[in-house]
Amino acid sequence: MADIREVTHIDNIKLSPDRKSVIILDQTQLPNRMVYLTMDKAEDCYDAIRELKVRGAPAIGIFAAYSMYVLAQRLSEESYEAFCGEFHRLKEYLNSSRPTAVNLSWALNRMEGVVLSHSDSGVPEIIRLLGEERAKIHQEDIDMCRRISEYGLSLLREGDGILTHCNAGPLATSRYGTAIGPMLLGRERGMNFHVFSDETRPLLQGARLTSFELQKAGVDVTLICDNMASIVMKNGWVNACLVGCDRIAANGDFANKIGTSGVAILAKHYGIPFYTLGPTSTIDMSCPTGDDIRIELRDPEEIKEKFYREPMALKEVECYNPAFDVTDHSLVTGIVTEKGICYPPYTESLKKLFD
Amino acid sequence: MADIREVTHIDNIKLSPDRKSVIILDQTQLPNRMVYLTMDKAEDCYDAIRELKVRGAPAIGIFAAYSMYVLAQRLSEESYEAFCGEFHRLKEYLNSSRPTAVNLSWALNRMEGVVLSHSDSGVPEIIRLLGEERAKIHQEDIDMCRRISEYGLSLLREGDGILTHCNAGPLATSRYGTAIGPMLLGRERGMNFHVFSDETRPLLQGARLTSFELQKAGVDVTLICDNMASIVMKNGWVNACLVGCDRIAANGDFANKIGTSGVAILAKHYGIPFYTLGPTSTIDMSCPTGDDIRIELRDPEEIKEKFYREPMALKEVECYNPAFDVTDHSLVTGIVTEKGICYPPYTESLKKLFD
Repeated sequence: MADIREVTHIDNIKLSPDRKSVIILDQTQLPNRMVYLTMDKAEDCYDAIRELKVRGAPAIGIFAAYSMYVLAQRLSEESYEAFCGEFHRLKEYLNSSRPTAVNLSWALNRMEGVVLSHSDSGVPEIIRLLGEERAKIHQEDIDMCRRISEYGLSLLREGDGILTHCNAGPLATSRYGTAIGPMLLGRERGMNFHVFSDETRPLLQGARLTSFELQKAGVDVTLICDNMASIVMKNGWVNACLVGCDRIAANGDFANKIGTSGVAILAKHYGIPFYTLGPTSTIDMSCPTGDDIRIELRDPEEIKEKFYREPMALKEVECYNPAFDVTDHSLVTGIVTEKGICYPPYTESLKKLFD
Repeated sequence: MADIREVTHIDNIKLSPDRKSVIILDQTQLPNRMVYLTMDKAEDCYDAIRELKVRGAPAIGIFAAYSMYVLAQRLSEESYEAFCGEFHRLKEYLNSSRPTAVNLSWALNRMEGVVLSHSDSGVPEIIRLLGEERAKIHQEDIDMCRRISEYGLSLLREGDGILTHCNAGPLATSRYGTAIGPMLLGRERGMNFHVFSDETRPLLQGARLTSFELQKAGVDVTLICDNMASIVMKNGWVNACLVGCDRIAANGDFANKIGTSGVAILAKHYGIPFYTLGPTSTIDMSCPTGDDIRIELRDPEEIKEKFYREPMALKEVECYNPAFDVTDHSLVTGIVTEKGICYPPYTESLKKLFD
């Protein structure tokens, strides 16, 4: 099994040596196997996002940038217009793989911006610039995660109990991660936390990924089922909740993995501070409130079949399987970004980030 | 697969034709197989409770009564004192199988009461009386469930959305069940409800049993993961929460399947009435508050391994696996018993039940 350094500094998204393929660590096979997938076809890239082989809002954005660079190399170089049209078609195709995280369209738009702003440069030069933009997006995420982790760590004290939901660690981003970042950074500095990791049904990212990352990094972690968050808080074991985010609306409402809003309501009930952590690219100022965020509905089989030895409910039983939910801004103590921590009223504090 | 009548009026606990064994439907094998187990040894009865082959507070009580009747027939009839001592030892042994539900010790004490109050009757007569007491406990539960269902149904309206957690239906009790009873009774009378069944990790009683029972009874049911209760309530789809209970303290705090307290907090947040339903045998007036209820901790493997094709977390990851949690009385709209519905202040309304 991987050692600590390998996991916290794992290259979960990278180029092949000939730079013609993108290579990812298949997150659906963790924690039991470290399997790398090499891709150079649009369908494979689409499926990798759709099937959560690569997941986590920032990681999806980075992967989308890598994918567009790799796919662009296979397009016809004969005319700028043809290249542009084909590039746009591919971009729209990847963008349709998952609807909730804003980082996907954000990264795709940045890549297309390179194409559109260099109409005079010739296709080979544009492809070279796409390679640079891809690297820039990745490096920016590494820097952002580091800054988010520093800001997040300023909210924690030695010995704190921390509850997190889903996975917003290195695998979901790059290096430190967002919500998990302060725990890893604090651990590097010799601090001790006790982390409760919600398993996060239906796809168990908390069990498979978060408890894996924290355990490997030497952080004291206890895995719980989602419905145990209430008793853990009631027992007085939680000093703060830290979660990631997939899209933050202008009023501070935010979408994150299904179950996040429940954690926020429990935290409020028990008087525990609740923070969401993410880069400013997650903030969608064109989205006034959480009601305007489209929530992805996924396959019922994820609930009834996916990981089980045998069916866990009758075939004919209906399932409701939203991938995300929206947490109301009134439940959020602070929003931690790479530019600092925003506090209510969020309509003002978020806006200031972009002034 | 079983038809509606078979499921809603299933004999989940019964005697063998020679009355020397107790037969149960193995709940751990549902919904995929209907397997009946025949038992006449104390160890098998203990394991059946411990491993949740029979589960649900009322069903555990009924099964314990059947078990003591069957086991008593195998004891020496030579002296009353020897019979008494051996009976007591068996009773204490079964009582240690699970600590939280009060119905187990309640039923065992009733059976022992028969033995203790008939010291002059001779062992064969005592065994006959134990057989009668067993039948009485079972019939009383059927009658109680029916009355609880009637009272519960008075709280519902045609078309209501109802959320339930874990399983408090026919399998957990007898005939109608407690929390599920009003839905089944209403359905019989032509009413339509839309029920959301929390899957209830780690052992998935909601997926395996509740959605099975409701689907078979023709009730419109949607299975959700526990962490989806918040979005379902936020969507405005839930008019009432109905759950069972394993022990109710004198102040109205009550223990029920892990996650129940979280559902109650969400319901309060969204302004949705939250009821617990159970027979008065579930009320433990000797237990002042929820803090005095002992919560059973179970095997971490139930979270990490049990139902999965392969391990879902690293072997070395620590798990916290409480089987129950305590819901504070301040979160409870009403407590529905076979004697009527109790409202706050519970210290008074519960006490009145026993006047």
